Amino acid sequence: MAKGALALLIESGTDNWSSDRWKERFRLACPGRDIVLNPADDIASEDVHYAAVWQPVPGALARFPKLRVIFNLGAGVDSLLADSDLPHVPLVRVVLGDLTQRMTEYIVLHVLMHHRQQLYLQQCQRDKRWEPRSQWAAKAIRIGIMGMGHLGRDAAEVLTRIGFRVAGWNSSPKLIPGIECFSGHADLMPFLARTDILVCLLPLTADTKAILNRKLFSSLARNGPLGAPVLINAGRGGLQVEADILGCLADGTLGAATLDVYEREPLPKSSPFWSHPNLLVTPHNAADADPDAISAYIAGQIIKFEAGGLLENAVDRVRGY
Amino acid sequence: MAKGALALLIESGTDNWSSDRWKERFRLACPGRDIVLNPADDIASEDVHYAAVWQPVPGALARFPKLRVIFNLGAGVDSLLADSDLPHVPLVRVVLGDLTQRMTEYIVLHVLMHHRQQLYLQQCQRDKRWEPRSQWAAKAIRIGIMGMGHLGRDAAEVLTRIGFRVAGWNSSPKLIPGIECFSGHADLMPFLARTDILVCLLPLTADTKAILNRKLFSSLARNGPLGAPVLINAGRGGLQVEADILGCLADGTLGAATLDVYEREPLPKSSPFWSHPNLLVTPHNAADADPDAISAYIAGQIIKFEAGGLLENAVDRVRGY
Repeated sequence: MAKGALALLIESGTDNWSSDRWKERFRLACPGRDIVLNPADDIASEDVHYAAVWQPVPGALARFPKLRVIFNLGAGVDSLLADSDLPHVPLVRVVLGDLTQRMTEYIVLHVLMHHRQQLYLQQCQRDKRWEPRSQWAAKAIRIGIMGMGHLGRDAAEVLTRIGFRVAGWNSSPKLIPGIECFSGHADLMPFLARTDILVCLLPLTADTKAILNRKLFSSLARNGPLGAPVLINAGRGGLQVEADILGCLADGTLGAATLDVYEREPLPKSSPFWSHPNLLVTPHNAADADPDAISAYIAGQIIKFEAGGLLENAVDRVRGY
Repeated sequence: MAKGALALLIESGTDNWSSDRWKERFRLACPGRDIVLNPADDIASEDVHYAAVWQPVPGALARFPKLRVIFNLGAGVDSLLADSDLPHVPLVRVVLGDLTQRMTEYIVLHVLMHHRQQLYLQQCQRDKRWEPRSQWAAKAIRIGIMGMGHLGRDAAEVLTRIGFRVAGWNSSPKLIPGIECFSGHADLMPFLARTDILVCLLPLTADTKAILNRKLFSSLARNGPLGAPVLINAGRGGLQVEADILGCLADGTLGAATLDVYEREPLPKSSPFWSHPNLLVTPHNAADADPDAISAYIAGQIIKFEAGGLLENAVDRVRGY
């Protein structure tokens, strides 16, 4: 009997990788298994047992009656869970050392850019001005990370090693050696009050939607060494209220920000974010997928699953991640 | 008997700290000892037993006949050793966790800026273009650090933790767990040939003067993931041949560079470095001195020295650092 086929449903590009390149990766990772592109490849719907997807059209997965597992090609499943016709089979998200390392690169880079006054120094360079400013040491700066899963924890460890004072906040309690961990609603205000640079890595759920708003920004540390607090959002655009970010940058509630995600992506040309002098805008590329690593991860999970093993990193649909 | 006085000779500013602010720091760190500013404060030359200096006028130290120790307020002593009238007393340089951490912040920031294509992404932001490019993982990038003393070693450890492939080159052999170490003249070419991003932290000596030249840049890895190799010099301006840096950026021998130090400082307005699109220029502020930490370090060394102990981090004048 032939192995159940794997269907690839990739609606928007991931890391500039075309569906064809993904298909080639999966062909190498899953020898002996049919890899089909929907809707380009002809295959009987009932032969498809697995789907690897990125932002598929709502309803697209419902047409496979024998589907056994859905693999999401990234960490965030918020857009998938919004599909009311999503089949009731296990949904697995990617948790990979590679993605974690890439996100840590991004977080460390942007924390250091703000801490080391890189926007100011690049303005000086454009103006040909040699005007160093006093520079705080990392130990004077309090980083607060919202979302202390795999990604948050790894970034926290590296930032701690560099010398920053790092704390985390998570919806459920976490115990991480060497990192002060806040959790739950009651801890949110004390966590924000001790935070100079806020890093957001939360999943997008009903509880976290629009959580990055004026009220939250107003609760960050005032009179810290940086003058005004800094926001770094590398989670999801739906976490942030963009009008509040602009308003808080304008009135000094926020000093600067880095955004990798937006309410609408790609960010429209008309957005005032592009030209804001205190904003670093990146095109949702904080943690690009490595197709080699992801296809190998999914192939390994399928083998384990077919041998009767448990799927790793299955999504809790009630929790939302 | 009064304690021997400490004279402060600070010719150019350090971290925008005035001589008066340094004097106040030393007054707190050295209770009961006269702290004098040369030439502002009147004091008999023979009462001065210690000097804490930053780029003093050549010959200025020769006027203290009872001088016992010279403390340099930074790590680099090249300009001091160029003073032919420098008294023959122990010369101590600053080796402090604080300075080391600040240098690591700088190195990690600039490695990540080049690795993560930040110059390209900021150009996209100015142009309001949402055009992410493929992004290599850190593990694809080979960092090579020249100068594996305290500073080089700490930066190497953090870069390794982030996921880069890090090697070091040092004039004398070093054994550092987890870091591939090259040493001496014979190892230089193999070290360069495996290096995509070269970080220079060498001291400036007769052997290292102008070492960062076209011949060395031409020996870096070709066809690496970044396209062309990258230079980061946070050592001394005298290590680099600036015409070669410009020429190698122009013909593609180098892809980009970060410079914190220059042949002439402040960097003249006329320098083409300021406006080069592939250059990040910073005003010799990679590792600013923390006056609190440095004054406490020097005060502690004086107490130990007067009790008959050994001075730490004394400079070998033949070696040059």
